Amino acid sequence: MKVYKQLIEVFSDHLANHVSEVQQKKPIELYGPEAYLLTLGGKRIRPLLVLIGCDLFDTHPSKALDAALSVEFFHNFSLVHDDILDQAPLRRGQPTVHTKWNTNIAILSGDVILVRAFQVLNSYEPQQFQALSNLLSKTAIEVCEGQQLDMNFENLDTVRVDDYIAMITFKTAVLLGCSLQIGSIIAGASPNDQQHLYEFGKHLGISFQLLDDLLDAFATDPEKFGKQTGGDIMANKKTFLLLKAIENANPAQQTEIQSVMAMAKGPEKVTRMLSLFRALNVEQACRTEADKHTQIALQHLSKINADPSKKEHLKQFAIDLLNRDL
Amino acid sequence: MKVYKQLIEVFSDHLANHVSEVQQKKPIELYGPEAYLLTLGGKRIRPLLVLIGCDLFDTHPSKALDAALSVEFFHNFSLVHDDILDQAPLRRGQPTVHTKWNTNIAILSGDVILVRAFQVLNSYEPQQFQALSNLLSKTAIEVCEGQQLDMNFENLDTVRVDDYIAMITFKTAVLLGCSLQIGSIIAGASPNDQQHLYEFGKHLGISFQLLDDLLDAFATDPEKFGKQTGGDIMANKKTFLLLKAIENANPAQQTEIQSVMAMAKGPEKVTRMLSLFRALNVEQACRTEADKHTQIALQHLSKINADPSKKEHLKQFAIDLLNRDL
Repeated sequence: MKVYKQLIEVFSDHLANHVSEVQQKKPIELYGPEAYLLTLGGKRIRPLLVLIGCDLFDTHPSKALDAALSVEFFHNFSLVHDDILDQAPLRRGQPTVHTKWNTNIAILSGDVILVRAFQVLNSYEPQQFQALSNLLSKTAIEVCEGQQLDMNFENLDTVRVDDYIAMITFKTAVLLGCSLQIGSIIAGASPNDQQHLYEFGKHLGISFQLLDDLLDAFATDPEKFGKQTGGDIMANKKTFLLLKAIENANPAQQTEIQSVMAMAKGPEKVTRMLSLFRALNVEQACRTEADKHTQIALQHLSKINADPSKKEHLKQFAIDLLNRDL
Repeated sequence: MKVYKQLIEVFSDHLANHVSEVQQKKPIELYGPEAYLLTLGGKRIRPLLVLIGCDLFDTHPSKALDAALSVEFFHNFSLVHDDILDQAPLRRGQPTVHTKWNTNIAILSGDVILVRAFQVLNSYEPQQFQALSNLLSKTAIEVCEGQQLDMNFENLDTVRVDDYIAMITFKTAVLLGCSLQIGSIIAGASPNDQQHLYEFGKHLGISFQLLDDLLDAFATDPEKFGKQTGGDIMANKKTFLLLKAIENANPAQQTEIQSVMAMAKGPEKVTRMLSLFRALNVEQACRTEADKHTQIALQHLSKINADPSKKEHLKQFAIDLLNRDL
């Protein structure tokens, strides 16, 4: 991340200006949640990707600041609404909007942030505006589809691993591809380069999510990971690991998986599922799948016509992002 | 409405095509509610206003069909989410989306319909697209602000009549102005004509809402009105009538108003409140206020440079819309 430190700082200033404006707006019930959420922190990966995508094609990233705000707005909209759907009490260690205020306010303030994601693109000239707005709306619909598929999976007995990959592609990965492409649109990159950059971001996102599943189960330093290890197992979440375990299990192991899933939440549930995961070698399967998508991502990156040293920075950034410690 | 019968039919066909497409989409949990809602009927006032706004400046209304879809999408998005906020069981006599499916699906499918409102504008060329998209996002944010103000009013002891007018302007009226202006943008009308048309629609909307408050209290033919008379009174809704009654009441009447508001729902509550309304002459005050906004609307219409016979049709349409029987 060091190489992009300056970009993050520039975006943070731009965001801070926006938050000061939002804090003046009324009704405060509608705008308070937006200001709250935008100051909760987070890694700002998506806006950073917008700026990187612009800089890669030798255009000053300051031109991409409003578009970076747009994807950060969209991301925050999806957090507010997803937290309602998931009944999540905490976000980045702080109360979620529907917990701190109420569900009605969370719905409505989320709606406003979604509209703002489109509105803030207005500073671009018409042709760029249209390209940006369309990419955002396509992506937004895919993200909603991914969220719906994820909810559907909860009620299904079995889910194919391929369907899981399709779900995380929509729910998580396309927004990373979209963010990079948005930056490249502002820089006037060729459609071919835009497409490779989008695919790079998308496959990076798939890989990132698979490794996130892995960390959720196996992270040895939960503080560094930022969440409690075993959360997915406790929630019987149909992650790559669980689905692959079900796919690989013999009949006795199938029965064991079902009985562990039927257990109440607690450390024993996690221990027993982890020993099944180990016996069925799903950690390795997940790493292999993640590596596959990392390689596809890097192949797309290699095909982009841009300054090799900038491409190398982006490659290193991707590798750092993926290599969070287990 | 007769003069615009053909426009309504053309839009209905366009909408039906869209619904057939939506019905093929997956996941069905996400798209089923959209198809359901769009086939529940409704008067299609907003899309009709888009087509009228286009036709007024001698451009074939078929050019405005996608924009008409956009405002219908936006309107339906706001219905789905508002019905959650209001815990409304029925919409147009049928179960609301959150009742027929569940709240999570209603939130998420509403989000998709909102994004679709922006996406469907993509068929316009860049400059028009930007103008349309910006007007829609400005209006969308105002509608959300209006909805939040309406929710805030529920928890306030007193609300000024002016604040009530400001609330209905945002919650209801601006979308009518926006719809007409959208049509005029597509027809390439001058900024001045666009603005007068917007103001015409907005003031028409304020007048319409005031008369709706009146009908809710005094309609003698609930079947024609489409809702049960007295609903607002039963819900202690802070309408123009109640707020004006509070404003006009002497201390004894104030006490009486408070005690009627404290009563449980039932016919006696309605009867007693109506007799207070009559004593305080709020029906007339509401009519006067509505007339004021109708006159402002018609003044704006008169200033528009367009075919006088088309302006006359629109005037007649506005009058018909307002003159629903008491």
